[in-house]
Amino acid sequence: MVTLNTFGRSFRITTFGESHGTAIGAVVDGCPPGVFLSPADIQPFLDRRRPGSSDLVTPRRESDLVEILSGVFEGQTLGTPIALLIKSETARSSDYDQLRDLYRPGHADRTYYEKYGIRDHRGGGRSSGRETAGRVAAGAVASICLKTRGISVIGKIIEIHGNCDPATFEHEIRDARDRGDSVGGVISLTITGCPAGLGDPVFGKLDALLAAALMSIGGVKGIEIGSGFAGARMYGSEHNDPMSPEGYLSNNAGGILGGISSGQDILVRLAVKPTPSICILQSTIDQSGNPRSIVVGGRHDPCIALRIVPVAEAMAALVLMDALLEQDTYAAWKPNRTGTDN
Amino acid sequence: MVTLNTFGRSFRITTFGESHGTAIGAVVDGCPPGVFLSPADIQPFLDRRRPGSSDLVTPRRESDLVEILSGVFEGQTLGTPIALLIKSETARSSDYDQLRDLYRPGHADRTYYEKYGIRDHRGGGRSSGRETAGRVAAGAVASICLKTRGISVIGKIIEIHGNCDPATFEHEIRDARDRGDSVGGVISLTITGCPAGLGDPVFGKLDALLAAALMSIGGVKGIEIGSGFAGARMYGSEHNDPMSPEGYLSNNAGGILGGISSGQDILVRLAVKPTPSICILQSTIDQSGNPRSIVVGGRHDPCIALRIVPVAEAMAALVLMDALLEQDTYAAWKPNRTGTDN
Amino acid sequence: MVTLNTFGRSFRITTFGESHGTAIGAVVDGCPPGVFLSPADIQPFLDRRRPGSSDLVTPRRESDLVEILSGVFEGQTLGTPIALLIKSETARSSDYDQLRDLYRPGHADRTYYEKYGIRDHRGGGRSSGRETAGRVAAGAVASICLKTRGISVIGKIIEIHGNCDPATFEHEIRDARDRGDSVGGVISLTITGCPAGLGDPVFGKLDALLAAALMSIGGVKGIEIGSGFAGARMYGSEHNDPMSPEGYLSNNAGGILGGISSGQDILVRLAVKPTPSICILQSTIDQSGNPRSIVVGGRHDPCIALRIVPVAEAMAALVLMDALLEQDTYAAWKPNRTGTDN
Amino acid sequence: MVTLNTFGRSFRITTFGESHGTAIGAVVDGCPPGVFLSPADIQPFLDRRRPGSSDLVTPRRESDLVEILSGVFEGQTLGTPIALLIKSETARSSDYDQLRDLYRPGHADRTYYEKYGIRDHRGGGRSSGRETAGRVAAGAVASICLKTRGISVIGKIIEIHGNCDPATFEHEIRDARDRGDSVGGVISLTITGCPAGLGDPVFGKLDALLAAALMSIGGVKGIEIGSGFAGARMYGSEHNDPMSPEGYLSNNAGGILGGISSGQDILVRLAVKPTPSICILQSTIDQSGNPRSIVVGGRHDPCIALRIVPVAEAMAALVLMDALLEQDTYAAWKPNRTGTDN
Repeated sequence: MVTLNTFGRSFRITTFGESHGTAIGAVVDGCPPGVFLSPADIQPFLDRRRPGSSDLVTPRRESDLVEILSGVFEGQTLGTPIALLIKSETARSSDYDQLRDLYRPGHADRTYYEKYGIRDHRGGGRSSGRETAGRVAAGAVASICLKTRGISVIGKIIEIHGNCDPATFEHEIRDARDRGDSVGGVISLTITGCPAGLGDPVFGKLDALLAAALMSIGGVKGIEIGSGFAGARMYGSEHNDPMSPEGYLSNNAGGILGGISSGQDILVRLAVKPTPSICILQSTIDQSGNPRSIVVGGRHDPCIALRIVPVAEAMAALVLMDALLEQDTYAAWKPNRTGTDN
Repeated sequence: MVTLNTFGRSFRITTFGESHGTAIGAVVDGCPPGVFLSPADIQPFLDRRRPGSSDLVTPRRESDLVEILSGVFEGQTLGTPIALLIKSETARSSDYDQLRDLYRPGHADRTYYEKYGIRDHRGGGRSSGRETAGRVAAGAVASICLKTRGISVIGKIIEIHGNCDPATFEHEIRDARDRGDSVGGVISLTITGCPAGLGDPVFGKLDALLAAALMSIGGVKGIEIGSGFAGARMYGSEHNDPMSPEGYLSNNAGGILGGISSGQDILVRLAVKPTPSICILQSTIDQSGNPRSIVVGGRHDPCIALRIVPVAEAMAALVLMDALLEQDTYAAWKPNRTGTDN
Repeated sequence: MVTLNTFGRSFRITTFGESHGTAIGAVVDGCPPGVFLSPADIQPFLDRRRPGSSDLVTPRRESDLVEILSGVFEGQTLGTPIALLIKSETARSSDYDQLRDLYRPGHADRTYYEKYGIRDHRGGGRSSGRETAGRVAAGAVASICLKTRGISVIGKIIEIHGNCDPATFEHEIRDARDRGDSVGGVISLTITGCPAGLGDPVFGKLDALLAAALMSIGGVKGIEIGSGFAGARMYGSEHNDPMSPEGYLSNNAGGILGGISSGQDILVRLAVKPTPSICILQSTIDQSGNPRSIVVGGRHDPCIALRIVPVAEAMAALVLMDALLEQDTYAAWKPNRTGTDN
Repeated sequence: MVTLNTFGRSFRITTFGESHGTAIGAVVDGCPPGVFLSPADIQPFLDRRRPGSSDLVTPRRESDLVEILSGVFEGQTLGTPIALLIKSETARSSDYDQLRDLYRPGHADRTYYEKYGIRDHRGGGRSSGRETAGRVAAGAVASICLKTRGISVIGKIIEIHGNCDPATFEHEIRDARDRGDSVGGVISLTITGCPAGLGDPVFGKLDALLAAALMSIGGVKGIEIGSGFAGARMYGSEHNDPMSPEGYLSNNAGGILGGISSGQDILVRLAVKPTPSICILQSTIDQSGNPRSIVVGGRHDPCIALRIVPVAEAMAALVLMDALLEQDTYAAWKPNRTGTDN
């Protein structure tokens, strides 16, 4: 279920908050009772997304401390909604005064205004990457639940600006930053420990939900599962993953067949565009349609792909946890396989 | 909203049917009243997906005639659910007896059984491509509605087996078929006439919903919006689409910024894997885990990408119609832009 | 989840069909796999609702034979959507020509037109009681599933036209019918065998979902759980149900506390208005707003409460089955009570 | 849509918080942009529900000050989620130590534990009436939106302990309180200014959604629309509301026909049980099943019906606002009535 600011069906999150508002956060609903959970368990997930953590990310400093307002009692989840709050700190709204009536290229300033007829121009408002802190906090809860079942999601950068050699990633990013520009990259996600049987055909296919989850992250322009676009260039005889009693002999499927997990590792890749905020003169228009030019100042990431890694992990964890809960339902009903086979 | 066999939030479809069951179909709920609709309006959409239409697709013959069971009165929609039914005809279930306890590589036979503990082995059951006839019928209703608002979705094959020259597509497919093999391909979708403002941040981004919709089609392994994976290899200064009073000066965004349509054409590409059913010996296992080998006989498409084109159009039309209805809600509420600007 | 023509969250039904259209039906989605199911299992539920079964109900004759179009294979559910179809038979649309532009008092003719700007005037179209045949067929599937878990729903008439003596019910109905009039009644539902723990606070309370389910049946004007309106006249010391090691000592709660089942019988009552179709002259208006008078001829029930009994059972079964599936999810996660207690 | 802690489809609220936790609150999603909104607009709604406001309600003092954390910019809604926060103040958790392993009769202590295997025993945790402060804050936003369209919801007490004379209400309550007991009551809601056409058949009937909304308030045991249970005692010729060019000549329907608003006032009544917390010795059991007796001390309301009035108004406003937004969608599509009529 993908609806405005709520994501998920059985394990659901609702996020809120604008970039320069009072706070951002998320409400996690449907978390099973009895899971051990504290702010200290969630904080490390946020720390990985936090700005100011290296010279390759925006120097804007936010401590991004998470509070748990509800749903946890004496260190365990109650089964009731878990409200997570992250208060804003260093909002310097005046940085954004020049943007009050100006549209930044590559940003959602103009489309938000066209949709709503009103917008919060400060740092992109709701369309800011800062919104993803709520997702990361909520995704941490999912990850903690998944860990108790042996499932984990691991994201990493596999390409920066077309370069696949990890040793050169920093160089590519610094080079772009030094010229006031930015670069894109590709992230891979590997989900391990996932049992066979998760995901719901027809529209609730596990890969469809992962695609929605990841494409909902600002800046993501492409998604591949398993073989991805390379698979479209293969013969069927190459692409099919043969089976043996020891398991599948390859994984072009990327761990999902017919929308259902196969028990193999789930393999996903996502393409992230270069940060749209750059210190280079660009053509644009203002809210009244007049031609203008703009240099986006302020504190920006030269490569948002870096900070999207924990967000992508969070979104994948949410999808997995949701699918796991739904499959758990069937446990009480699934026909006895032995009986069926014999 | 993506939930099992229902897709959409305001314009919703629920599909049903197994490949070799009595019938397949769809219930369309939320269609506006007063739209002119008859079976003859829907049939051409199904005819494009129908098997047996050329020597490049499966010779299995299904006339795929659609009936409207409800929701239409004297040629106009009532606003009530529109049930669409397509009866099955040439089901030769005995073709599939050898598959009763055997898993076909590249198909969902095994994962369905692992999920449900039971499966209809005839032609893939619910996981068959035949399921998409229900989507196409329902998508036709969406397309017909969209047309009254000037919006259309056009899909085409842009690559077969890595070859981008349309003149060679038939050759690639015949060549694979003649060797008992199959090939994959890439489809592009272009959505024209879409107004700015459709799509809902955060999780209901228009691109996220398109990705879910298209990835939910069996065999799709990758999705790109606008620049896609190529965008991850650009500088920000190349990727950003500058604006002028006459409009955007490029369209790397693919018509969607921050999840909201910009008024430009919406551009999507999808990677389709080669048909898994091939007449070449493959290793597999049976339901009890014993090693087996298989040659999948029967009537198959050497390149399912061809027949996925109208399905992809249908799914995109459903997403667009849903987003359009939701944005229509705001019309009564949107702040007066003139007032805000002045 | 209550949305237009879909009801339920984990066990979901979507119904379709107008009174005098080609067919009515329902799609059941989320039914567990491996449940034994055939048309013969469902038919008895429909037979109880069928018109023409006694001289106290409408003589309109419909055999209401149900077909299963999908979701069942070799006698067992597949876990895929179960499409249920009931073809119409004796539609005499010409009976309704006089109603093309006339609003019947107590019916939804006028409000449908005001909502949609178009309506099917034949027999009330979608607002007809005939729509409930789809609910009964779908509810039968839920009842069959519930039976495997020892849960059953039993409805009965407990009051007709204010008279609580069952021996007089037939008399009350005949008396009204003979004068061309109609009477209302009260139905009780008793749900037995329901385990403690079903229902989801806050908005998904079991009593709230039962209320929505039952109030969604045309003609229902009131709902009571347990003590109902009488409870509002008690002292707390009378109303509270004391507990002993042997169980609760009374059941004013009606088997639900805080929205969660207590393991006691669940007790519900619903008030059904008199059939609005009567053979007595009434004042009304036509579609253009002109004053008119009307005598509603045709084949009507003098007391729809009789035929609502199986519909109410069906709706309650749907709510229970949905809640049961959701609670089943938690089985894998619920903290070990023994561990917690000791 | 009724799902756990989220209510509504187009205008949706998600609430969170336990009675004695850090804070309670709600996230409102789907609010139209451009509505003027400030904490000062919401506060009066909360003040009416607040404890400590007279000697007839609990002396527990909570200032219940609401903060808006997001979704409002320069005094207007943005169309993004509006997070509302009410911090807890006077939580005296130690008051509840005796209840750690004891079940209070008439409360949800036991069923929560049976559902989740864990519970927050302090003041009922999530099942406390305090949870409704989040609903009232969110409902205030709906009311403010509705007011711009001329729709209002007015609730009042019409019966206390079976007594319908308002002059005696205070006496009934004081009398019960002085004996350590409590009393129930009946509330009426009148919704004025509602246009015809709101509500969605079949399952989304306006009365069904109102019933769910109101029955989801703790302590509500019965719901009536229009004639209610009295309607079940009438003849059809009495119950039908005749129509004239000037409008309906009576309102037994309660303003809703076929689930769709008729343009008349919408009339609802709800039965509220007596407060379960009483200072009278009652039999109960502890978490291990041993017999115990209990006198519930602390600060309680002798008649919760009083404080449910604003909660019932809030829930009704949420239902109305949701239905209004959904009907607004159709405005762009509804067939031209003039054209159809002529």
